[in-house]
Amino acid sequence: MTTERTHVPEDEPLTSVHDAWRVEEGGARVERRSEEVAAEHPLTLVVNDRELATLVCSPSHLEELALGFLTAEGILRRGERIERFFLDAERGRAVVEAPDRDAELEQALFGKRYVGSCCGKSRTGFYLANDARTARRVEADLHVDPATCLRLVEELQAASPVFGRTGGVHNAGLASGGRLEVVRTDIGRHNTLDKLYGWALRAGLDPGERAVVFSGRISSEIVLKVAKMGCPVLVSKSAPTGLALRMADDLGITAAGFARGDRLNVYTHPRRILEEAGEDGAPEARPRP
Amino acid sequence: MTTERTHVPEDEPLTSVHDAWRVEEGGARVERRSEEVAAEHPLTLVVNDRELATLVCSPSHLEELALGFLTAEGILRRGERIERFFLDAERGRAVVEAPDRDAELEQALFGKRYVGSCCGKSRTGFYLANDARTARRVEADLHVDPATCLRLVEELQAASPVFGRTGGVHNAGLASGGRLEVVRTDIGRHNTLDKLYGWALRAGLDPGERAVVFSGRISSEIVLKVAKMGCPVLVSKSAPTGLALRMADDLGITAAGFARGDRLNVYTHPRRILEEAGEDGAPEARPRP
Repeated sequence: MTTERTHVPEDEPLTSVHDAWRVEEGGARVERRSEEVAAEHPLTLVVNDRELATLVCSPSHLEELALGFLTAEGILRRGERIERFFLDAERGRAVVEAPDRDAELEQALFGKRYVGSCCGKSRTGFYLANDARTARRVEADLHVDPATCLRLVEELQAASPVFGRTGGVHNAGLASGGRLEVVRTDIGRHNTLDKLYGWALRAGLDPGERAVVFSGRISSEIVLKVAKMGCPVLVSKSAPTGLALRMADDLGITAAGFARGDRLNVYTHPRRILEEAGEDGAPEARPRP
Repeated sequence: MTTERTHVPEDEPLTSVHDAWRVEEGGARVERRSEEVAAEHPLTLVVNDRELATLVCSPSHLEELALGFLTAEGILRRGERIERFFLDAERGRAVVEAPDRDAELEQALFGKRYVGSCCGKSRTGFYLANDARTARRVEADLHVDPATCLRLVEELQAASPVFGRTGGVHNAGLASGGRLEVVRTDIGRHNTLDKLYGWALRAGLDPGERAVVFSGRISSEIVLKVAKMGCPVLVSKSAPTGLALRMADDLGITAAGFARGDRLNVYTHPRRILEEAGEDGAPEARPRP
Protein backbone atom coordinates (compact mmCIF):
# COMPACT_ATOMS: atom_id res chain seq x y z
CA MET A 1 0.00 0.00 0.00
CA THR A 2 1.39 3.35 -0.93
CA THR A 3 0.09 6.76 -0.11
CA GLU A 4 -0.62 8.80 -3.17
CA ARG A 5 -0.85 12.53 -2.67
CA THR A 6 -2.47 14.27 -5.54
CA HIS A 7 -3.34 17.67 -4.21
CA VAL A 8 -2.53 18.71 -0.68
CA PRO A 9 -2.58 22.49 -0.38
CA GLU A 10 -2.41 22.21 3.35
CA ASP A 11 -0.30 24.24 5.70
CA GLU A 12 -2.34 27.28 4.95
CA PRO A 13 -1.58 30.07 7.37
CA LEU A 14 -2.67 29.08 10.86
CA THR A 15 -3.85 32.61 11.47
CA SER A 16 -5.72 35.36 9.74
CA VAL A 17 -5.93 39.06 10.34
CA HIS A 18 -9.12 40.85 11.32
CA ASP A 19 -10.07 44.42 11.94
CA ALA A 20 -10.66 45.24 15.55
CA TRP A 21 -11.21 48.18 17.79
CA ARG A 22 -8.76 47.98 20.65
CA VAL A 23 -10.16 49.60 23.75
CA GLU A 24 -7.72 50.68 26.43
CA GLU A 25 -7.79 52.39 29.81
CA GLY A 26 -11.21 50.98 30.57
CA GLY A 27 -12.69 52.70 27.55
CA ALA A 28 -10.93 56.05 27.59
CA ARG A 29 -8.99 55.20 24.41
CA VAL A 30 -10.13 53.39 21.28
CA GLU A 31 -7.77 52.53 18.47
CA ARG A 32 -8.60 50.78 15.24
CA ARG A 33 -6.11 48.11 14.34
CA SER A 34 -5.54 44.72 12.77
CA GLU A 35 -5.47 41.72 15.08
CA GLU A 36 -4.09 38.29 14.27
CA VAL A 37 -6.45 35.47 15.22
CA ALA A 38 -6.29 31.68 14.97
CA ALA A 39 -7.72 30.18 11.78
CA GLU A 40 -10.60 27.72 12.21
CA HIS A 41 -11.69 25.48 9.37
CA PRO A 42 -14.29 22.73 9.22
CA LEU A 43 -12.90 19.66 7.46
CA THR A 44 -15.30 16.91 6.47
CA LEU A 45 -13.68 13.49 6.32
CA VAL A 46 -15.04 11.43 3.46
CA VAL A 47 -13.86 7.84 3.79
CA ASN A 48 -14.50 5.41 0.94
CA ASP A 49 -17.21 7.73 -0.37
CA ARG A 50 -18.98 8.08 2.97
CA GLU A 51 -19.07 11.25 5.04
CA LEU A 52 -17.66 10.17 8.36
CA ALA A 53 -17.27 13.31 10.42
CA THR A 54 -16.60 17.01 10.32
CA LEU A 55 -13.64 18.14 12.35
CA VAL A 56 -13.13 21.80 13.05
CA CYS A 57 -9.39 22.29 12.94
CA SER A 58 -6.39 24.43 12.17
CA PRO A 59 -5.33 23.97 8.53
CA SER A 60 -2.02 22.16 8.92
CA HIS A 61 -0.87 18.55 8.76
CA LEU A 62 -4.28 17.42 7.60
CA GLU A 63 -3.22 14.03 6.30
CA GLU A 64 -1.64 13.28 9.67
CA LEU A 65 -4.85 14.45 11.30
CA ALA A 66 -6.93 12.11 9.14
CA LEU A 67 -4.58 9.17 9.67
CA GLY A 68 -4.45 9.65 13.45
CA PHE A 69 -8.18 10.19 13.77
CA LEU A 70 -9.13 7.18 11.63
CA THR A 71 -6.73 4.92 13.52
CA ALA A 72 -7.89 6.16 16.91
CA GLU A 73 -11.50 5.57 15.84
CA GLY A 74 -10.72 2.04 14.71
CA ILE A 75 -11.54 2.70 11.05
CA LEU A 76 -7.93 1.95 10.21
CA ARG A 77 -6.04 -0.75 12.04
CA ARG A 78 -2.89 0.41 13.69
CA GLY A 79 -0.10 0.59 11.13
CA GLU A 80 -2.42 0.63 8.13
CA ARG A 81 -1.94 3.49 5.72
CA ILE A 82 -4.39 5.74 3.99
CA GLU A 83 -4.31 4.51 0.37
CA ARG A 84 -5.12 7.85 -1.16
CA PHE A 85 -5.60 11.30 0.34
CA PHE A 86 -7.08 14.21 -1.54
CA LEU A 87 -7.73 17.56 0.05
CA ASP A 88 -10.61 19.40 -1.60
CA ALA A 89 -9.78 22.72 0.01
CA GLU A 90 -12.55 24.54 -1.84
CA ARG A 91 -15.29 22.39 -0.32
CA GLY A 92 -13.51 21.71 2.96
CA ARG A 93 -13.35 17.99 2.39
CA ALA A 94 -10.60 15.45 2.91
CA VAL A 95 -11.34 12.53 0.62
CA VAL A 96 -9.74 9.37 1.91
CA GLU A 97 -9.44 5.96 0.33
CA ALA A 98 -8.77 3.34 2.95
CA PRO A 99 -9.00 -0.42 3.23
CA ASP A 100 -12.58 -1.62 3.10
CA ARG A 101 -13.92 -1.21 6.62
CA ASP A 102 -17.63 -1.11 6.16
CA ALA A 103 -18.43 -2.60 9.54
CA GLU A 104 -16.11 -0.18 11.34
CA LEU A 105 -17.52 2.75 9.40
CA GLU A 106 -21.06 1.71 10.33
CA GLN A 107 -19.99 1.50 13.94
CA ALA A 108 -18.35 4.90 13.84
CA LEU A 109 -21.31 6.45 12.05
CA PHE A 110 -24.14 4.99 14.06
CA GLY A 111 -22.58 3.48 17.16
CA LYS A 112 -22.05 6.66 19.09
CA ARG A 113 -22.90 10.29 19.19
CA TYR A 114 -20.36 12.96 19.73
CA VAL A 115 -21.29 16.20 21.32
CA GLY A 116 -18.83 18.88 22.16
CA SER A 117 -15.86 17.54 24.00
CA CYS A 118 -17.54 14.20 24.45
CA CYS A 119 -16.33 10.70 23.87
CA GLY A 120 -19.51 8.85 24.67
CA LYS A 121 -18.77 6.86 27.79
CA SER A 122 -21.14 6.03 30.58
CA ARG A 123 -20.24 7.22 34.03
CA THR A 124 -19.82 3.63 35.17
CA GLY A 125 -16.57 3.29 33.28
CA PHE A 126 -17.90 1.38 30.31
CA TYR A 127 -16.41 2.67 27.09
CA LEU A 128 -18.27 2.42 23.86
CA ALA A 129 -17.37 -0.22 21.30
CA ASN A 130 -14.93 1.90 19.29
CA ASP A 131 -13.04 2.96 22.36
CA ALA A 132 -12.91 -0.51 23.85
CA ARG A 133 -11.45 -1.82 20.62
CA THR A 134 -8.66 0.73 20.35
CA ALA A 135 -7.93 1.84 23.93
CA ARG A 136 -5.90 -0.72 25.86
CA ARG A 137 -4.20 -0.53 29.22
CA VAL A 138 -0.76 0.94 28.68
CA GLU A 139 1.96 -1.16 30.29
CA ALA A 140 5.01 0.40 28.61
CA ASP A 141 7.74 1.60 30.89
CA LEU A 142 9.19 5.04 30.37
CA HIS A 143 10.96 7.31 32.81
CA VAL A 144 10.75 11.07 32.68
CA ASP A 145 12.02 12.92 35.72
CA PRO A 146 10.15 16.00 37.01
CA ALA A 147 12.73 18.53 35.80
CA THR A 148 12.50 17.09 32.28
CA CYS A 149 8.68 17.23 32.39
CA LEU A 150 8.85 20.90 33.30
CA ARG A 151 11.44 21.72 30.65
CA LEU A 152 9.42 19.91 27.96
CA VAL A 153 6.29 21.91 28.78
CA GLU A 154 8.30 25.12 28.53
CA GLU A 155 9.81 24.06 25.23
CA LEU A 156 6.36 23.16 23.91
CA GLN A 157 5.10 26.67 24.53
CA ALA A 158 8.22 28.21 23.07
CA ALA A 159 7.77 26.06 19.95
CA SER A 160 4.38 27.62 19.22
CA PRO A 161 4.63 31.21 18.07
CA VAL A 162 0.98 30.96 17.00
CA PHE A 163 -0.13 30.59 20.59
CA GLY A 164 1.88 33.61 21.60
CA ARG A 165 0.38 35.71 18.82
CA THR A 166 -3.26 34.59 19.04
CA GLY A 167 -3.86 32.91 22.42
CA GLY A 168 -6.28 30.73 20.50
CA VAL A 169 -4.62 27.36 19.88
CA HIS A 170 -3.47 24.26 21.71
CA ASN A 171 -0.15 22.49 21.35
CA ALA A 172 0.95 18.93 21.86
CA GLY A 173 4.31 17.27 21.37
CA LEU A 174 5.87 13.84 21.52
CA ALA A 175 9.04 13.59 23.57
CA SER A 176 11.69 10.90 23.56
CA GLY A 177 15.02 10.90 25.37
CA GLY A 178 14.14 14.20 27.03
CA ARG A 179 13.72 15.90 23.67
CA LEU A 180 10.62 17.16 21.86
CA GLU A 181 10.58 15.34 18.52
CA VAL A 182 7.49 16.92 17.04
CA VAL A 183 5.00 19.63 17.97
CA ARG A 184 1.54 20.04 16.47
CA THR A 185 -0.79 22.99 16.85
CA ASP A 186 -4.56 23.11 16.50
CA ILE A 187 -7.55 25.01 17.74
CA GLY A 188 -8.97 21.65 18.90
CA ARG A 189 -7.24 19.91 21.78
CA HIS A 190 -7.97 16.41 20.50
CA ASN A 191 -6.83 17.34 16.99
CA THR A 192 -3.34 18.06 18.28
CA LEU A 193 -3.15 14.47 19.53
CA ASP A 194 -4.55 13.01 16.31
CA LYS A 195 -1.89 14.93 14.39
CA LEU A 196 0.83 13.55 16.67
CA TYR A 197 -0.52 10.04 16.29
CA GLY A 198 -0.64 10.40 12.51
CA TRP A 199 2.93 11.70 12.51
CA ALA A 200 4.18 8.72 14.54
CA LEU A 201 2.26 6.23 12.39
CA ARG A 202 3.67 7.67 9.18
CA ALA A 203 7.17 7.69 10.62
CA GLY A 204 6.79 4.12 11.88
CA LEU A 205 7.67 5.21 15.43
CA ASP A 206 6.28 3.61 18.58
CA PRO A 207 4.29 6.04 20.73
CA GLY A 208 4.77 3.58 23.60
CA GLU A 209 8.32 4.88 23.94
CA ARG A 210 7.23 8.48 24.00
CA ALA A 211 5.62 10.98 26.37
CA VAL A 212 2.84 13.33 25.33
CA VAL A 213 3.48 16.95 26.35
CA PHE A 214 0.32 19.00 26.21
CA SER A 215 -0.97 22.52 26.73
CA GLY A 216 -4.64 21.76 27.34
CA ARG A 217 -6.91 20.38 29.98
CA ILE A 218 -6.70 16.67 30.70
CA SER A 219 -10.26 15.53 30.04
CA SER A 220 -11.53 11.99 29.55
CA GLU A 221 -11.32 12.29 25.77
CA ILE A 222 -7.68 13.29 25.99
CA VAL A 223 -6.81 10.34 28.21
CA LEU A 224 -8.64 8.01 25.82
CA LYS A 225 -6.68 9.38 22.86
CA VAL A 226 -3.40 8.94 24.70
CA ALA A 227 -4.36 5.36 25.60
CA LYS A 228 -5.30 4.63 22.00
CA MET A 229 -1.89 5.92 20.94
CA GLY A 230 -0.31 3.72 23.61
CA CYS A 231 1.66 6.56 25.23
CA PRO A 232 2.48 5.85 28.88
CA VAL A 233 3.04 9.43 30.07
CA LEU A 234 0.93 12.56 29.67
CA VAL A 235 2.23 15.86 31.04
CA SER A 236 0.11 19.00 30.77
CA LYS A 237 0.40 22.56 31.84
CA SER A 238 -3.34 22.57 32.60
CA ALA A 239 -5.87 21.02 34.98
CA PRO A 240 -7.31 17.50 34.89
CA THR A 241 -10.90 16.39 35.41
CA GLY A 242 -12.03 13.72 37.83
CA LEU A 243 -13.21 11.32 35.13
CA ALA A 244 -9.94 11.73 33.24
CA LEU A 245 -7.98 10.72 36.33
CA ARG A 246 -10.16 7.66 36.95
CA MET A 247 -9.61 6.64 33.34
CA ALA A 248 -5.87 7.31 33.46
CA ASP A 249 -5.68 5.16 36.57
CA ASP A 250 -7.68 2.43 34.84
CA LEU A 251 -5.72 2.60 31.58
CA GLY A 252 -2.28 2.60 33.18
CA ILE A 253 -1.34 6.12 32.12
CA THR A 254 0.86 8.42 34.18
CA ALA A 255 -0.97 11.75 34.19
CA ALA A 256 0.67 14.94 35.42
CA GLY A 257 -0.90 18.40 35.35
CA PHE A 258 -0.28 22.03 36.28
CA ALA A 259 3.32 21.69 35.07
CA ARG A 260 4.32 25.33 35.43
CA GLY A 261 7.52 26.94 36.54
CA ASP A 262 9.17 24.54 38.98
CA ARG A 263 6.01 22.67 40.04
CA LEU A 264 3.74 19.94 38.79
CA ASN A 265 1.18 17.48 40.15
CA VAL A 266 1.46 13.77 39.39
CA TYR A 267 -1.96 12.16 39.70
CA THR A 268 -1.74 8.57 38.52
CA HIS A 269 0.87 5.80 38.17
CA PRO A 270 3.63 8.04 39.54
CA ARG A 271 6.41 5.45 39.10
CA ARG A 272 7.29 6.77 35.65
CA ILE A 273 8.03 10.25 37.05
CA LEU A 274 8.76 9.60 40.74
CA GLU A 275 11.00 6.95 42.22
CA GLU A 276 9.76 4.45 44.75
CA ALA A 277 6.22 5.67 44.55
CA GLY A 278 4.49 2.34 44.20
CA GLU A 279 1.01 1.97 42.79
CA ASP A 280 -0.22 2.31 46.36
CA GLY A 281 1.31 5.75 46.46
CA ALA A 282 3.93 5.20 49.11
CA PRO A 283 4.49 8.54 50.79
CA GLU A 284 8.26 8.19 50.50
CA ALA A 285 8.05 9.00 46.79
CA ARG A 286 11.12 10.79 45.52
CA PRO A 287 11.79 12.44 42.22
CA ARG A 288 13.50 10.18 39.72
CA PRO A 289 17.15 11.16 39.39
CA MET B 1 -47.75 21.65 29.27
CA THR B 2 -46.19 21.37 32.65
CA THR B 3 -42.82 20.14 33.65
CA GLU B 4 -42.95 17.23 36.02
CA ARG B 5 -39.82 16.55 38.03
CA THR B 6 -39.85 13.15 39.55
CA HIS B 7 -36.25 12.59 40.50
CA VAL B 8 -33.57 15.18 39.96
CA PRO B 9 -30.59 14.52 42.18
CA GLU B 10 -28.59 17.06 40.28
CA ASP B 11 -26.27 19.64 41.68
CA GLU B 12 -23.88 16.98 42.73
CA PRO B 13 -20.56 18.45 43.77
CA LEU B 14 -18.86 20.09 40.80
CA THR B 15 -15.52 18.81 42.02
CA SER B 16 -13.99 15.71 43.45
CA VAL B 17 -10.82 15.11 45.40
CA HIS B 18 -7.97 12.98 44.13
CA ASP B 19 -4.67 11.86 45.53
CA ALA B 20 -1.71 13.55 43.95
CA TRP B 21 1.98 13.92 44.40
CA ARG B 22 2.81 17.59 44.37
CA VAL B 23 6.31 18.15 43.04
CA GLU B 24 8.01 21.43 43.91
CA GLU B 25 11.33 23.14 43.32
CA GLY B 26 11.77 21.40 39.98
CA GLY B 27 11.67 17.99 41.64
CA ALA B 28 13.64 18.60 44.83
CA ARG B 29 10.50 18.22 46.97
CA VAL B 30 7.62 15.77 46.66
CA GLU B 31 4.59 15.92 48.89
CA ARG B 32 1.58 13.64 48.83
CA ARG B 33 -1.68 15.51 49.10
CA SER B 34 -5.28 15.69 48.05
CA GLU B 35 -6.13 17.87 45.07
CA GLU B 36 -9.56 19.14 44.13
CA VAL B 37 -10.39 18.62 40.45
CA ALA B 38 -13.39 19.44 38.28
CA ALA B 39 -15.99 16.68 38.00
CA GLU B 40 -16.72 15.38 34.50
CA HIS B 41 -19.78 13.25 33.80
CA PRO B 42 -21.14 11.84 30.58
CA LEU B 43 -24.88 12.44 30.30
CA THR B 44 -26.81 10.65 27.59
CA LEU B 45 -29.90 12.52 26.47
CA VAL B 46 -32.76 10.16 25.73
CA VAL B 47 -35.58 12.05 24.01
CA ASN B 48 -38.91 10.32 23.46
CA ASP B 49 -37.19 6.95 23.95
CA ARG B 50 -34.39 7.67 21.48
CA GLU B 51 -30.77 8.20 22.43
CA LEU B 52 -29.97 11.59 20.99
CA ALA B 53 -26.51 12.47 22.21
CA THR B 54 -24.03 12.08 25.02
CA LEU B 55 -22.83 15.32 26.53
CA VAL B 56 -19.84 15.33 28.81
CA CYS B 57 -20.65 17.92 31.44
CA SER B 58 -20.42 19.20 34.98
CA PRO B 59 -23.25 17.79 37.08
CA SER B 60 -25.34 20.89 37.75
CA HIS B 61 -28.44 22.45 36.23
CA LEU B 62 -28.97 19.43 34.01
CA GLU B 63 -32.58 20.16 33.13
CA GLU B 64 -31.57 23.64 31.98
CA LEU B 65 -28.78 22.01 29.99
CA ALA B 66 -31.21 19.62 28.31
CA LEU B 67 -33.74 22.37 27.59
CA GLY B 68 -31.14 24.74 26.16
CA PHE B 69 -29.46 22.04 24.09
CA LEU B 70 -32.71 20.69 22.65
CA THR B 71 -33.96 24.15 21.75
CA ALA B 72 -30.63 25.16 20.19
CA GLU B 73 -30.65 21.94 18.16
CA GLY B 74 -34.18 22.59 16.95
CA ILE B 75 -35.68 19.51 18.64
CA LEU B 76 -37.79 21.84 20.74
CA ARG B 77 -39.25 24.99 19.29
CA ARG B 78 -38.31 28.13 21.12
CA GLY B 79 -40.53 28.52 24.17
CA GLU B 80 -41.65 24.90 24.24
CA ARG B 81 -41.12 23.09 27.49
CA ILE B 82 -39.81 19.67 28.29
CA GLU B 83 -42.91 17.72 29.32
CA ARG B 84 -41.14 15.39 31.68
CA PHE B 85 -37.53 15.22 32.85
CA PHE B 86 -36.07 12.29 34.72
CA LEU B 87 -32.43 12.05 35.68
CA ASP B 88 -31.24 8.47 35.91
CA ALA B 89 -28.05 9.35 37.74
CA GLU B 90 -27.01 5.72 38.11
CA ARG B 91 -26.89 5.14 34.36
CA GLY B 92 -25.90 8.69 33.42
CA ARG B 93 -29.06 9.28 31.43
CA ALA B 94 -31.43 12.22 31.22
CA VAL B 95 -34.76 10.87 30.03
CA VAL B 96 -36.78 13.58 28.37
CA GLU B 97 -40.34 13.55 27.16
CA ALA B 98 -40.90 16.29 24.64
CA PRO B 99 -43.46 17.15 21.99
CA ASP B 100 -43.39 14.69 19.12
CA ARG B 101 -40.56 15.83 16.87
CA ASP B 102 -39.69 12.77 14.93
CA ALA B 103 -38.49 14.64 11.87
CA GLU B 104 -36.30 16.95 13.94
CA LEU B 105 -34.87 14.01 15.87
CA GLU B 106 -34.06 12.22 12.62
CA GLN B 107 -32.35 15.34 11.39
CA ALA B 108 -30.36 15.73 14.58
CA LEU B 109 -29.41 12.06 14.63
CA PHE B 110 -28.46 11.59 11.03
CA GLY B 111 -28.15 15.04 9.55
CA LYS B 112 -24.78 15.93 10.93
CA ARG B 113 -21.76 14.54 12.65
CA TYR B 114 -20.21 16.16 15.64
CA VAL B 115 -16.57 15.77 16.37
CA GLY B 116 -14.82 17.54 19.16
CA SER B 117 -15.58 21.19 19.21
CA CYS B 118 -17.29 20.97 15.89
CA CYS B 119 -20.60 22.25 14.66
CA GLY B 120 -20.54 20.85 11.17
CA LYS B 121 -20.35 23.82 8.86
CA SER B 122 -18.59 24.05 5.59
CA ARG B 123 -15.90 26.66 5.19
CA THR B 124 -17.98 28.48 2.62
CA GLY B 125 -20.35 29.76 5.27
CA PHE B 126 -23.16 27.32 4.69
CA TYR B 127 -24.61 26.10 7.95
CA LEU B 128 -26.23 22.72 8.22
CA ALA B 129 -29.97 22.36 8.35
CA ASN B 130 -30.28 22.41 12.14
CA ASP B 131 -28.22 25.52 12.46
CA ALA B 132 -29.94 27.34 9.63
CA ARG B 133 -33.30 26.66 11.25
CA THR B 134 -32.36 27.99 14.66
CA ALA B 135 -29.59 30.56 14.07
CA ARG B 136 -30.90 33.84 12.73
CA ARG B 137 -29.26 37.18 12.24
CA VAL B 138 -29.50 39.08 15.51
CA GLU B 139 -30.88 42.57 15.06
CA ALA B 140 -31.63 43.43 18.68
CA ASP B 141 -30.18 46.63 19.99
CA LEU B 142 -28.37 46.62 23.29
CA HIS B 143 -25.74 48.95 24.63
CA VAL B 144 -22.97 47.88 26.94
CA ASP B 145 -20.14 50.34 27.42
CA PRO B 146 -16.54 49.10 27.62
CA ALA B 147 -16.16 49.66 31.35
CA THR B 148 -19.28 47.59 32.00
CA CYS B 149 -17.96 44.80 29.73
CA LEU B 150 -14.75 44.69 31.73
CA ARG B 151 -16.51 44.73 35.08
CA LEU B 152 -18.88 41.93 34.02
CA VAL B 153 -15.99 39.69 32.99
CA GLU B 154 -14.35 40.30 36.37
CA GLU B 155 -17.59 39.56 38.21
CA LEU B 156 -18.03 36.38 36.19
CA GLN B 157 -14.69 35.04 37.36
CA ALA B 158 -15.35 36.10 40.93
CA ALA B 159 -18.69 34.26 40.81
CA SER B 160 -16.99 30.94 40.10
CA PRO B 161 -15.10 29.59 43.09
CA VAL B 162 -14.86 26.25 41.24
CA PHE B 163 -12.63 27.80 38.61
CA GLY B 164 -10.36 29.27 41.25
CA ARG B 165 -10.05 25.91 43.01
CA THR B 166 -9.67 23.62 39.99
CA GLY B 167 -8.71 25.69 36.94
CA GLY B 168 -10.76 23.16 35.02
CA VAL B 169 -14.10 24.76 34.17
CA HIS B 170 -15.63 27.46 32.01
CA ASN B 171 -18.15 30.08 33.06
CA ALA B 172 -20.80 32.01 31.24
CA GLY B 173 -23.30 34.55 32.43
CA LEU B 174 -26.21 36.57 31.14
CA ALA B 175 -26.11 40.28 31.89
CA SER B 176 -28.86 42.84 31.81
CA GLY B 177 -28.76 46.46 32.94
CA GLY B 178 -25.06 46.14 33.70
CA ARG B 179 -25.70 43.30 36.14
CA LEU B 180 -24.96 39.57 35.93
CA GLU B 181 -28.30 37.83 36.37
CA VAL B 182 -27.11 34.25 36.22
CA VAL B 183 -23.81 32.39 35.99
CA ARG B 184 -23.40 28.79 34.89
CA THR B 185 -20.29 26.64 35.17
CA ASP B 186 -19.32 23.60 33.15
CA ILE B 187 -16.26 21.72 31.94
CA GLY B 188 -17.66 22.16 28.41
CA ARG B 189 -17.71 25.65 26.95
CA HIS B 190 -20.86 25.09 24.90
CA ASN B 191 -22.63 23.50 27.88
CA THR B 192 -22.34 26.76 29.81
CA LEU B 193 -24.29 28.48 27.04
CA ASP B 194 -26.91 25.73 26.84
CA LYS B 195 -27.43 26.07 30.59
CA LEU B 196 -27.87 29.84 30.25
CA TYR B 197 -30.31 29.37 27.39
CA GLY B 198 -32.28 26.79 29.39
CA TRP B 199 -32.37 29.17 32.35
CA ALA B 200 -33.71 32.04 30.24
CA LEU B 201 -36.28 29.82 28.54
CA ARG B 202 -37.58 28.52 31.86
CA ALA B 203 -37.72 32.02 33.29
CA GLY B 204 -39.49 33.33 30.19
CA LEU B 205 -36.81 35.98 29.69
CA ASP B 206 -35.69 37.32 26.33
CA PRO B 207 -32.00 36.66 25.62
CA GLY B 208 -32.23 39.36 22.96
CA GLU B 209 -32.12 41.93 25.76
CA ARG B 210 -29.07 40.36 27.37
CA ALA B 211 -25.33 40.10 26.83
CA VAL B 212 -23.40 36.86 27.15
CA VAL B 213 -20.30 37.18 29.32
CA PHE B 214 -17.93 34.29 28.79
CA SER B 215 -14.63 32.87 30.00
CA GLY B 216 -13.74 30.71 27.02
CA ARG B 217 -12.50 31.02 23.49
CA ILE B 218 -14.87 32.46 20.90
CA SER B 219 -15.07 29.63 18.36
CA SER B 220 -17.61 29.18 15.59
CA GLU B 221 -19.74 26.86 17.72
CA ILE B 222 -19.93 29.49 20.45
CA VAL B 223 -21.03 32.21 18.04
CA LEU B 224 -23.66 29.84 16.61
CA LYS B 225 -25.01 29.11 20.08
CA VAL B 226 -25.18 32.82 20.90
CA ALA B 227 -27.01 33.46 17.62
CA LYS B 228 -29.46 30.66 18.34
CA MET B 229 -30.14 32.24 21.73
CA GLY B 230 -30.62 35.57 19.99
CA CYS B 231 -28.13 37.45 22.20
CA PRO B 232 -26.70 40.51 20.47
CA VAL B 233 -23.48 40.89 22.50
CA LEU B 234 -20.78 38.36 23.40
CA VAL B 235 -17.90 39.47 25.63
CA SER B 236 -15.12 37.03 26.46
CA LYS B 237 -11.90 37.13 28.39
CA SER B 238 -10.34 34.84 25.76
CA ALA B 239 -9.32 34.82 22.11
CA PRO B 240 -11.56 34.49 19.04
CA THR B 241 -10.99 32.39 15.91
CA GLY B 242 -11.18 33.68 12.38
CA LEU B 243 -14.25 31.62 11.44
CA ALA B 244 -16.04 32.75 14.60
CA LEU B 245 -15.50 36.40 13.65
CA ARG B 246 -16.75 35.86 10.09
CA MET B 247 -19.85 34.20 11.52
CA ALA B 248 -20.39 36.91 14.15
CA ASP B 249 -20.15 39.50 11.40
CA ASP B 250 -22.63 37.52 9.30
CA LEU B 251 -25.04 36.87 12.17
CA GLY B 252 -25.10 40.45 13.47
CA ILE B 253 -23.40 39.67 16.78
CA THR B 254 -21.10 42.11 18.57
CA ALA B 255 -18.10 40.01 19.55
CA ALA B 256 -15.47 41.29 21.99
CA GLY B 257 -12.50 39.32 23.28
CA PHE B 258 -9.43 39.56 25.50
CA ALA B 259 -11.47 41.53 28.03
CA ARG B 260 -8.86 41.70 30.77
CA GLY B 261 -7.92 44.41 33.19
CA ASP B 262 -8.73 47.72 31.48
CA ARG B 263 -8.54 46.49 27.88
CA LEU B 264 -10.64 44.61 25.37
CA ASN B 265 -10.89 44.12 21.61
CA VAL B 266 -14.18 44.66 19.80
CA TYR B 267 -14.17 42.68 16.57
CA THR B 268 -17.61 42.89 14.98
CA HIS B 269 -20.62 45.22 14.98
CA PRO B 270 -18.97 47.61 17.42
CA ARG B 271 -21.96 49.97 17.64
CA ARG B 272 -23.33 48.16 20.69
CA ILE B 273 -20.12 48.83 22.67
CA LEU B 274 -18.60 51.85 20.92
CA GLU B 275 -20.32 55.03 19.90
CA GLU B 276 -20.31 56.28 16.34
CA ALA B 277 -18.47 53.28 15.05
CA GLY B 278 -20.62 52.53 12.08
CA GLU B 279 -20.73 49.16 10.39
CA ASP B 280 -17.94 50.40 8.18
CA GLY B 281 -15.81 50.82 11.25
CA ALA B 282 -15.36 54.54 11.22
CA PRO B 283 -12.07 55.27 12.88
CA GLU B 284 -13.61 57.97 15.03
CA ALA B 285 -15.22 55.31 17.19
CA ARG B 286 -15.55 56.35 20.80
CA PRO B 287 -16.51 54.39 23.86
CA ARG B 288 -20.19 54.56 24.65
CA PRO B 289 -20.75 56.79 27.66
